[in-house]
Amino acid sequence: RERLRAALETPGFQRFIVTVIVINAATLGVETSAAAVQRYGTVLTVIDHLALYVFVAELGCKLYAYGPRFFRNPWNLFDTAIVTVSLLPTAGGLSVLRALRILRALRLISVVPSLRRVVSALLTAVPGMTSIVLLLALVLYVAAVMGTKLYHATAPAYFGDLPTSLFTLFQMMTGDAWSDITRQVMNTHPWAWVFFVAFMLVCTFVVLNLFIAVVVSAMEE
Amino acid sequence: RERLRAALETPGFQRFIVTVIVINAATLGVETSAAAVQRYGTVLTVIDHLALYVFVAELGCKLYAYGPRFFRNPWNLFDTAIVTVSLLPTAGGLSVLRALRILRALRLISVVPSLRRVVSALLTAVPGMTSIVLLLALVLYVAAVMGTKLYHATAPAYFGDLPTSLFTLFQMMTGDAWSDITRQVMNTHPWAWVFFVAFMLVCTFVVLNLFIAVVVSAMEE
Amino acid sequence: RERLRAALETPGFQRFIVTVIVINAATLGVETSAAAVQRYGTVLTVIDHLALYVFVAELGCKLYAYGPRFFRNPWNLFDTAIVTVSLLPTAGGLSVLRALRILRALRLISVVPSLRRVVSALLTAVPGMTSIVLLLALVLYVAAVMGTKLYHATAPAYFGDLPTSLFTLFQMMTGDAWSDITRQVMNTHPWAWVFFVAFMLVCTFVVLNLFIAVVVSAMEE
Amino acid sequence: RERLRAALETPGFQRFIVTVIVINAATLGVETSAAAVQRYGTVLTVIDHLALYVFVAELGCKLYAYGPRFFRNPWNLFDTAIVTVSLLPTAGGLSVLRALRILRALRLISVVPSLRRVVSALLTAVPGMTSIVLLLALVLYVAAVMGTKLYHATAPAYFGDLPTSLFTLFQMMTGDAWSDITRQVMNTHPWAWVFFVAFMLVCTFVVLNLFIAVVVSAMEE
Ligand code: NA
Ligand code: NA
Repeated sequence: RERLRAALETPGFQRFIVTVIVINAATLGVETSAAAVQRYGTVLTVIDHLALYVFVAELGCKLYAYGPRFFRNPWNLFDTAIVTVSLLPTAGGLSVLRALRILRALRLISVVPSLRRVVSALLTAVPGMTSIVLLLALVLYVAAVMGTKLYHATAPAYFGDLPTSLFTLFQMMTGDAWSDITRQVMNTHPWAWVFFVAFMLVCTFVVLNLFIAVVVSAMEE
Repeated sequence: RERLRAALETPGFQRFIVTVIVINAATLGVETSAAAVQRYGTVLTVIDHLALYVFVAELGCKLYAYGPRFFRNPWNLFDTAIVTVSLLPTAGGLSVLRALRILRALRLISVVPSLRRVVSALLTAVPGMTSIVLLLALVLYVAAVMGTKLYHATAPAYFGDLPTSLFTLFQMMTGDAWSDITRQVMNTHPWAWVFFVAFMLVCTFVVLNLFIAVVVSAMEE
Repeated sequence: RERLRAALETPGFQRFIVTVIVINAATLGVETSAAAVQRYGTVLTVIDHLALYVFVAELGCKLYAYGPRFFRNPWNLFDTAIVTVSLLPTAGGLSVLRALRILRALRLISVVPSLRRVVSALLTAVPGMTSIVLLLALVLYVAAVMGTKLYHATAPAYFGDLPTSLFTLFQMMTGDAWSDITRQVMNTHPWAWVFFVAFMLVCTFVVLNLFIAVVVSAMEE
Repeated sequence: RERLRAALETPGFQRFIVTVIVINAATLGVETSAAAVQRYGTVLTVIDHLALYVFVAELGCKLYAYGPRFFRNPWNLFDTAIVTVSLLPTAGGLSVLRALRILRALRLISVVPSLRRVVSALLTAVPGMTSIVLLLALVLYVAAVMGTKLYHATAPAYFGDLPTSLFTLFQMMTGDAWSDITRQVMNTHPWAWVFFVAFMLVCTFVVLNLFIAVVVSAMEE
């Protein structure tokens, strides 16, 4: 066990895993081309299976080497989840599951130390954001219910039901084509700009403060 | 009174109010679906009325328990305003008032401490922003008067009258489809880009400084 | 002179000037409506002329009271420039000059202390920005010459000549509909994305650093 | 050599080079107009050639004056690369190479000290960004493979093959018309919003943190 652990932590082994991930990511990219699949289909499938065997073997070794401590490292859980997705049966037309295989490329994050450090740093910013994100979600929900109530008949493509309104208002929050939609609604409800401009101002203000909260907390560290 | 006050401040009571708000927000969301209203209309109305009774009773108890001090707490005024909106008669086709009932979900802000803290923090940023927001409003007004004078005949949909110009320039300030409008006006007034590019630069510059003012004042605290 | 100077600096006089500016801004806003001009045309013109007399008289008094020192205060130059624009003859169809009269509303900036302070603060940020703005202008010019050379035949509406290209690239810099234009050019030049994506990345990077330079220098003060 | 070096470093010589660059940039700009080329074609070509001779001579002198140390200064390599591009044969319809001549205007960066300082400062921000940029590239690649797999048949114009998907997702990352594309895909795949909204949130979050990393590291200096 001790020796296996040592072997798993050598830079050589880690470089090998990085190489496998990069090659596998490349073959999965090549696989998106129907022409390439027709020509090199078998090769691509073989590489894909080999890569998956390597990942399963690696996880197995780690599980054996570290024992129950394996599950205490969140990066191991991340790797296990990604590999599990690839092992699910993809028969039955579940093209989504096949598409998820490329998530394996995200294993680079857990293997390359600099990416791992960056993502860890990103995640430390999350707790400080939850309250503002909750507030934003609340504002979005309230606006979506109001938007549906008021404009579902006027602009069914944008406010036909609650999920549609939520998507439309999320879109407006990102500033994408918000004035188009507003002008369209204003054809029927001339005062609709009050609702939309207020929504834009509130969202911008809250997002601005979300931003500032993150900057300030980043500074303090 | 003392005992009522103590009861109002127990975590149990606050959790109960949060639950009522969340359930009521959910039923108001479900109510946006005509199919759901047809099926569960009565249940939804009953829950809605019960929630409103709870809110009125809560405010009444607080008013009795705290006496005149009740009105010194701005959050109580906030709650009272929201509940009052729900009590207004909604007959006579005032669909807007019916839509405003979902504002009750915003009571979460005054009840959940973490949201309350975030909003309080947001509001402390407001005084430092008033001067720059005033300046921005002044720039917007001046540009809207000029835009209406110069382009009301060329692009009536965008600059037909002062309110329309104000909306169009607010839209341009957010960067949404500003070049489309500018190109359209430039078909008739080839030099219109001077006006619009100057407006964009001034707004961006002022907004950038608004932003910085807020960041800097947030840092100082 | 001493007494005139003292009179000019009383809060009462300044409040009077603010009132005149606000009333004049309002009448110039009302003047944008053809219906209002037809009804109240004479009143609006009279108020406009009275306001202009007040501004000229105010500047005359200040000039007399402060003598040559008058010209050392940049705000006085600002006020003089704005009032001069209003005195230029507007005959001969110079509708632009008529539209510029609303610039008088900007005199609020020089009269209201809080606006004055904000704008002064904004202007202190300018020197620290010149180098980066120059760099951005250089990038824009180089890209516009390249864009015109390469795509003037493919997309004459966007890259027909140098000024058109400059406008188009400024638009892309603000992120407005940049992908539409790129896709359109890519129909003929499949590799055009290299040029446009590079331009977007360079601009974003430089603007980001412009931003940071301003934040950092604001912090240091 | 010593004297040549001294001569190359006099402000007079540097001002001369700046003048040549600016004149050359202007003539290359004028050259974009077919009418101007027809009239002043010969003059423009002569100026262009003269400027190129000056740049080549300048580089030659510097190379002689500084010897091998010439290559240790990255700005000299930058200048050499730019001049070399201009010396490549432009026959054979390589209009791209002709368009690249305007890159000479970028020599202003290496000659004008303030621009040089700004660009150096920009470049110091690069190392701190590499990890996050890598992460962003990884996210982009994974999303592009998934997008192509899932939507290549539904929206071939946007997700037809891997490069097209990469461009589309880069566009969405900049917020340009992302909701249009999403709605289009949602006509066939009603759950596509999960993919696109998740992509937008992850990208915004990572870009925000990229931003903060740069601000924080700029502060520390
Ligand atoms: Na847009
Ligand atoms: Na946009």
